[in-house]
Amino acid sequence: MTYSFTNDYSEGCHPNILRRLSETNLTQQPGYGNDEATLESVAAIRALCQRPDVDVHLVAGGTLANLIVLGAFLKSYESVIAAETGHINNHEAGAIEATGHKIETVPTPDGKLTPRLIEPLLNKFPEYHTVKPRMVYISNSTEIGTIYTKQELTALSQFCHENNLLLFMDGARLGMALSAAGNDMTLADIASLTDIFYLGATKCGGLIGEAIVLANPALKKDFKYYIKQRGALMAKGRLFGAQFAELLKDNLLFELGGHANQLAQQLATALQDLGYTFLTPAQTNQIFPILPDALILELNKKYGFFVWRKMADGLSAVRLITSWATPQEQVDQFLHDVKSLSTPTSTH
Amino acid sequence: MTYSFTNDYSEGCHPNILRRLSETNLTQQPGYGNDEATLESVAAIRALCQRPDVDVHLVAGGTLANLIVLGAFLKSYESVIAAETGHINNHEAGAIEATGHKIETVPTPDGKLTPRLIEPLLNKFPEYHTVKPRMVYISNSTEIGTIYTKQELTALSQFCHENNLLLFMDGARLGMALSAAGNDMTLADIASLTDIFYLGATKCGGLIGEAIVLANPALKKDFKYYIKQRGALMAKGRLFGAQFAELLKDNLLFELGGHANQLAQQLATALQDLGYTFLTPAQTNQIFPILPDALILELNKKYGFFVWRKMADGLSAVRLITSWATPQEQVDQFLHDVKSLSTPTSTH
Amino acid sequence: MTYSFTNDYSEGCHPNILRRLSETNLTQQPGYGNDEATLESVAAIRALCQRPDVDVHLVAGGTLANLIVLGAFLKSYESVIAAETGHINNHEAGAIEATGHKIETVPTPDGKLTPRLIEPLLNKFPEYHTVKPRMVYISNSTEIGTIYTKQELTALSQFCHENNLLLFMDGARLGMALSAAGNDMTLADIASLTDIFYLGATKCGGLIGEAIVLANPALKKDFKYYIKQRGALMAKGRLFGAQFAELLKDNLLFELGGHANQLAQQLATALQDLGYTFLTPAQTNQIFPILPDALILELNKKYGFFVWRKMADGLSAVRLITSWATPQEQVDQFLHDVKSLSTPTSTH
Amino acid sequence: MTYSFTNDYSEGCHPNILRRLSETNLTQQPGYGNDEATLESVAAIRALCQRPDVDVHLVAGGTLANLIVLGAFLKSYESVIAAETGHINNHEAGAIEATGHKIETVPTPDGKLTPRLIEPLLNKFPEYHTVKPRMVYISNSTEIGTIYTKQELTALSQFCHENNLLLFMDGARLGMALSAAGNDMTLADIASLTDIFYLGATKCGGLIGEAIVLANPALKKDFKYYIKQRGALMAKGRLFGAQFAELLKDNLLFELGGHANQLAQQLATALQDLGYTFLTPAQTNQIFPILPDALILELNKKYGFFVWRKMADGLSAVRLITSWATPQEQVDQFLHDVKSLSTPTSTH
Repeated sequence: MTYSFTNDYSEGCHPNILRRLSETNLTQQPGYGNDEATLESVAAIRALCQRPDVDVHLVAGGTLANLIVLGAFLKSYESVIAAETGHINNHEAGAIEATGHKIETVPTPDGKLTPRLIEPLLNKFPEYHTVKPRMVYISNSTEIGTIYTKQELTALSQFCHENNLLLFMDGARLGMALSAAGNDMTLADIASLTDIFYLGATKCGGLIGEAIVLANPALKKDFKYYIKQRGALMAKGRLFGAQFAELLKDNLLFELGGHANQLAQQLATALQDLGYTFLTPAQTNQIFPILPDALILELNKKYGFFVWRKMADGLSAVRLITSWATPQEQVDQFLHDVKSLSTPTSTH
Repeated sequence: MTYSFTNDYSEGCHPNILRRLSETNLTQQPGYGNDEATLESVAAIRALCQRPDVDVHLVAGGTLANLIVLGAFLKSYESVIAAETGHINNHEAGAIEATGHKIETVPTPDGKLTPRLIEPLLNKFPEYHTVKPRMVYISNSTEIGTIYTKQELTALSQFCHENNLLLFMDGARLGMALSAAGNDMTLADIASLTDIFYLGATKCGGLIGEAIVLANPALKKDFKYYIKQRGALMAKGRLFGAQFAELLKDNLLFELGGHANQLAQQLATALQDLGYTFLTPAQTNQIFPILPDALILELNKKYGFFVWRKMADGLSAVRLITSWATPQEQVDQFLHDVKSLSTPTSTH
Repeated sequence: MTYSFTNDYSEGCHPNILRRLSETNLTQQPGYGNDEATLESVAAIRALCQRPDVDVHLVAGGTLANLIVLGAFLKSYESVIAAETGHINNHEAGAIEATGHKIETVPTPDGKLTPRLIEPLLNKFPEYHTVKPRMVYISNSTEIGTIYTKQELTALSQFCHENNLLLFMDGARLGMALSAAGNDMTLADIASLTDIFYLGATKCGGLIGEAIVLANPALKKDFKYYIKQRGALMAKGRLFGAQFAELLKDNLLFELGGHANQLAQQLATALQDLGYTFLTPAQTNQIFPILPDALILELNKKYGFFVWRKMADGLSAVRLITSWATPQEQVDQFLHDVKSLSTPTSTH
Repeated sequence: MTYSFTNDYSEGCHPNILRRLSETNLTQQPGYGNDEATLESVAAIRALCQRPDVDVHLVAGGTLANLIVLGAFLKSYESVIAAETGHINNHEAGAIEATGHKIETVPTPDGKLTPRLIEPLLNKFPEYHTVKPRMVYISNSTEIGTIYTKQELTALSQFCHENNLLLFMDGARLGMALSAAGNDMTLADIASLTDIFYLGATKCGGLIGEAIVLANPALKKDFKYYIKQRGALMAKGRLFGAQFAELLKDNLLFELGGHANQLAQQLATALQDLGYTFLTPAQTNQIFPILPDALILELNKKYGFFVWRKMADGLSAVRLITSWATPQEQVDQFLHDVKSLSTPTSTH
C-alpha cells in the first residue's frame, strides 16, 4: 500500500516529544501527574484558556476521557444527550452505559447539536419514570468532520445553562477544529462556553493523551479519585506531560492540526473540481466524498481508507483522513491517481 | 533531595525504547494493537511462556489491568479473594468495587495467599445470600516485597483448580519477582500455574504498559470488547508495543528487575549488618527496615522514602524502593549516611 | 372523578388472593421462596408451560424483573435490542443502563420486533468498537396494546436462535395477550419459543409479583444469587406465592385478562362506530383512540386517562386502559357520555 | 417440627393489615406511592418522628433499601463503613459492591460502631489512591441482637457530623430495638440523630415493606428517580401503604416488637437460670445462648433454629429468634424441653 488515509493516528508523534522524553529520561520525577512536564502542560493550557483557575487532568485516550467525565458528573438516573453520530454512542463498545448512564440520541443533519434538537428530550413525562437529562455531549470537530461556529456554541451553551445541563465537548480533534478555515473560536472561547472539554494529543501529533479541562469550578472536587478509580492515573505521568508540554509550545498542536486540515481541503477541492459531491461538508481533516464503486476499487489497491456508506447507483461515500504527518506528495499522488481513473461527471 | 527511594517509577525508561520509538516514528502502523511492535511483543511473550496459544493484550497500567480482568471474568455475584495487603484492596480507590465486585480479604503474615488461608471463605452459608468466590488475586512480587516459590504457587494453583477458582497474578513487579535471588520460577511456570497474569513494564524499565496474558483458553473470547469498553484500547498501540518489544529482547526486562533487586539487597544486607531488623523478608526491590525515628528524620533530609508504619519505642518501618535505574553510587552514599548517623544497636 | 381508565393497576387484587393470605396467615413458612404457596405457583406454571424443567422465580415488579434478567444474562459489552416503544427504553428511569448495558432500539410501526428490523443491528463494524447484541427484548402485549401471533413469534425465535441471540419476553401483560381475541398462542408456546419470559400478576388481578420463567436450561445456574443481589429476594415469599397460586387456579389470571380485554374492545368498537380512528390496532386492554381535543377536555372532567400524543387539527390520541376489575357500567357510562358529546365525523 | 425459632419472618402479618387490604380492595388508587394508605403512612411516620419535613419512601425489603440508599447517596469513589457483622457485608450477595461501592469493615465486640472504631479509617494515605469514607452504616437492633443507647448514638452522630460522614441506620428490626427493655430512644431521636434510617415492617408484623426516612433535607432531591431505577417503585404502592398505615396506628408495630422481645427475654432468663451463657448480650428478640451439642441435637428434633458457631468443648452458640406472632405456649414448651434435657452446669 502506498499510503493510508484510514485515520489520523497511523504515524507516531512530533519529534519534539521524543526529544524531550530522551532529554529528561533519567531525571527523577514525582508520579501520578505531579511531574514537571505535566505541570508545564497545565500552565500552558490555562494560559491558552485565559483561565488560571481551570483544572487540567491528562488521561490516555478519548474513550477513557469520555467515560470518566460522564461517570464522574452524572448521577445514576441522569442521562447524557448526544448526536446519533456521537462517538460515545457508536464507537465505545458501550463504555458509557457500562458506567450506568443512558445516552439519549437525536438524529442530526451534520453531526451537530442545537437547542432545537435537544429541547424535545427535556421535561419528559411521567416524572421519575424516565431518565433525567443532565449533560449534553458534543464533538468538535464532529465525527463527520464538521465544526461548530462561535454563534452555534454560544446558543448551545446558553440553552444548557438555562436548562441545568452540563455542556461537555469531546475535543479528540479539537486541534483540527480550532485550526480549520471556517473556525472563529479560540481555546479561551471553548473554556468559557463549556463546562468540561478535552483537548486531544493522540490525533494531533502526540503518541498518547487527552487533556481534560474542568472549566466549571463546581466540578473540580475529588475528580482525581475518579480518574484513579477508572485506572487512568498513570504512575509515569511524565509521558503524558511530555506530549502536551511540547505540543502546546508555540501553538505546535494547532499548526499540526492545520496541516492535516489543509491537505484534506486540497483533496476536497480537487475532488469537487472533478465533479464529485460530498456526504457532509468538508471542513476539517476528515472528508466524505461520494465516489463510483469502480473508482473506489481501483484506489483501494494503492490507498487505505474506509468505505463509509453505500449510496445509490454504484456510488459510495468514502472517508479520507489526513494527519499531522501526511506528506504533501501522498496527497498529490492520490489526486493524480483519481484524475487518471475518473470520468469527471460520475456523481452528477 | 539527593535521591528518591520512594518508588520504582521515578525515572523514565530504558533508552532502547526511546530509540525504537524514534526509528519507527513515521512508519504508518495499524491502530488498536495491530501494529508491528505489538505483534513482536506478543510473539516474545508467547515464546517466554513456551505457550504459542496464550492471548496477550497490552494495557496502560496496573489498576486498569486489574479492573479489566476482574470485570471481564467475574459474574456480578462472584467475588475475588485477596490478601489484605493486596493492591486491589488498598490502592485502587475502589476500582474493583466500581466494577461491581466484592473483594474478600484475608490477613496474611507476608502478603502471600495459601490454600489454608482461602479455604474458610469457600462454601459460605446460607447459599445465595453471600457472594460466591470465583477468583483468587495474588501479586508477585507482593506489595510488601515478598515472592512466591514454585511449590507455593503450585499448591495454590491446584487448590484453585479443585475449587473452581480462577487464579490471577498481578505482575506489576513480576520482572523483579522472577529475577530475585530466591526465585525458582520462569515465565513459563507462571503461565502454566495461573489462569491470567500480567507482566508489568511501568515498574521495570518501561514508560507505560502491562501485558495481560490469558493462559486459560476459556477466557479469550471477546476480551478485546471489554478492553475497549474500559477505555483501555489505545489508538497508537505502537507505544505499548515498543515497550515490550524492547524489554523482552535478550531478557532485558529481567536484567533491569535484577538490577533493582540487587541494589535493594545491598541496602538490606548492610542495614542488617548494622543491627536493624525488617518488617517483612527483604526479597526483592522493596525493603521495609525498621529504623529509629531520629535516623529517619535525618535521612529524609537527603533521601525520599515513605515511613510505612510507626512501631513501638521510637522506631518506624520505612519502605525503601530501588528501580531499574537506581545508580550504585546513590545506594553507596545512602549506606554511608546511615552508618554515619547510626547507633548500631538501635533496633535491638 | 367517576372512573379512571389511566392504567390497569388502580384496583387491589382478586379476592381469592386475600382469602388465601388470611387462611394461611399464621402458619409458619420457610422464607425466600421456599414456602408452600410459591412451590404451588411454580408447579402451576410448569404445568401450564408443559415443561416440568423450567425454573420459576417470583419477583416484585416488571422493572425489577427486566433489570435482573438483563443484568444476569448479558456480559457488560453485550447489548439488548428493543423496540423504541419498549418499556425498558422509556419508562424505567435508565434501570437497564444502570446495570451497565446498552439498549439498541429500532422504530416499529406497531411496537413489535421482526427479524427484518433486527438484522441491520447485527455484524456491526468495526468489531470490538461497538457493543455486541446478545438479547432481544419484546413485550406481549406490547406497550401500545398489540400482540404477537404464533407465526411472528416463531419467526423471531428462529432468527434469534440462528444468530446467537437470547429472546426475552416482558409479560407484564401476558395475561391480556394470551386472552386476546386475536391470540393463537398458549403459555406452552411462549415457553417453547422464548429463552426467558415473565408472567405478570400486578396488572392482571394480583397485588404484586411477576413470575420469571427460565425456559433455556443454560440460564438457570446461580440465578438466585443475582435475584438476591438486586434486593429482589423477599423474606416473606409467601406473599408472592399467594398471588400466583390463586391466579393460576382454573385459569383465573387469563379470565381476568380476558375481562379487561373485552371491556376495552367494547370501547374500541363503539368509538370506531362513532367514526373515530386509532393510533394503533386495538387488540387488548390498552386502546389509543384519536379524539377531538374538545371532547377530551369534557371527558377528562369525569374520567381519568392519559393524553398520549397531540395530533394535527385539534385531535389527540388518548390512552384508555381497562383492568381485571373495571365494571361494565363504567364502560357503558363512558360510551354514553362520549356519544352525548360527540360529533360523529370528527376524525374524518 | 413443633415450632421454628429460625427467624422472625416465618408467619404472615398482623390481621389488621389483611382487613384493611380487603376493605379498600376495590377503590381505585393512584399508583407508585400516591395512594391514600401510603400518604397515611407517611403522615404517621412524620408524626412519630416529630418532623413534618422528613421524606418517607416505602420499598419492599431491607437489601433493596440498603442498596438504594448507598447507591443514591455515595459517589463512586466514596465508601461506607460498617461493622464486620453488618448485614450489608455478609448477607446481601454483594449487593452494595454491585452498586459500585466498597464497604470498609471493622471488627466489633457487640455489632456496634463507635467513633473510636471508625476513626482509623479516616484520612487514609495516600490521597486519591484509596476510597474516601462518606457514610457510616449501623443496624439497630444489630445483626447479633444488641441495641444502641441514646448516648452511644449521640456520640456517633456527632462524630459523623464533624467528619462529613452520613449516618445511616438499618432499621429492619427498629421495632424491636425501640421496644427493648434497655432502650432509651424514640423514633424522634432516631430521626434527629441520623441522616437516613429505615423502619422495617417485614420483621415486625407486616408482610412486606421498609420505610426509608430521609431526615437530612440535602438528600431528598430526585430520590424517587433512584428508587424507580432500582426497580423498587411498585405500581400498587397501596400494598406497602397498608402495612405501615395499620402498623403505625396506636403503636402497634412497637407492641409487636415488644412481644417478640419479651418472649426472647423469657428464653434468655430461663436459660441463664439453667447456667447457660451467651455469645452476645440478650437484649432483643435474637438471642445467642451457648448450649451443649447433645442438647442442640435433641432440641433440633422439635424446634427449628440455626447453629451459629461451634465453640470449644462440645458447645455451640445457637440463634433463637422470636417473632411478633410467637405463641407463649411455644416458648413455655421449649423451655420445658430444655429443662428436661439439660444438665444445668453444662456451660461452666
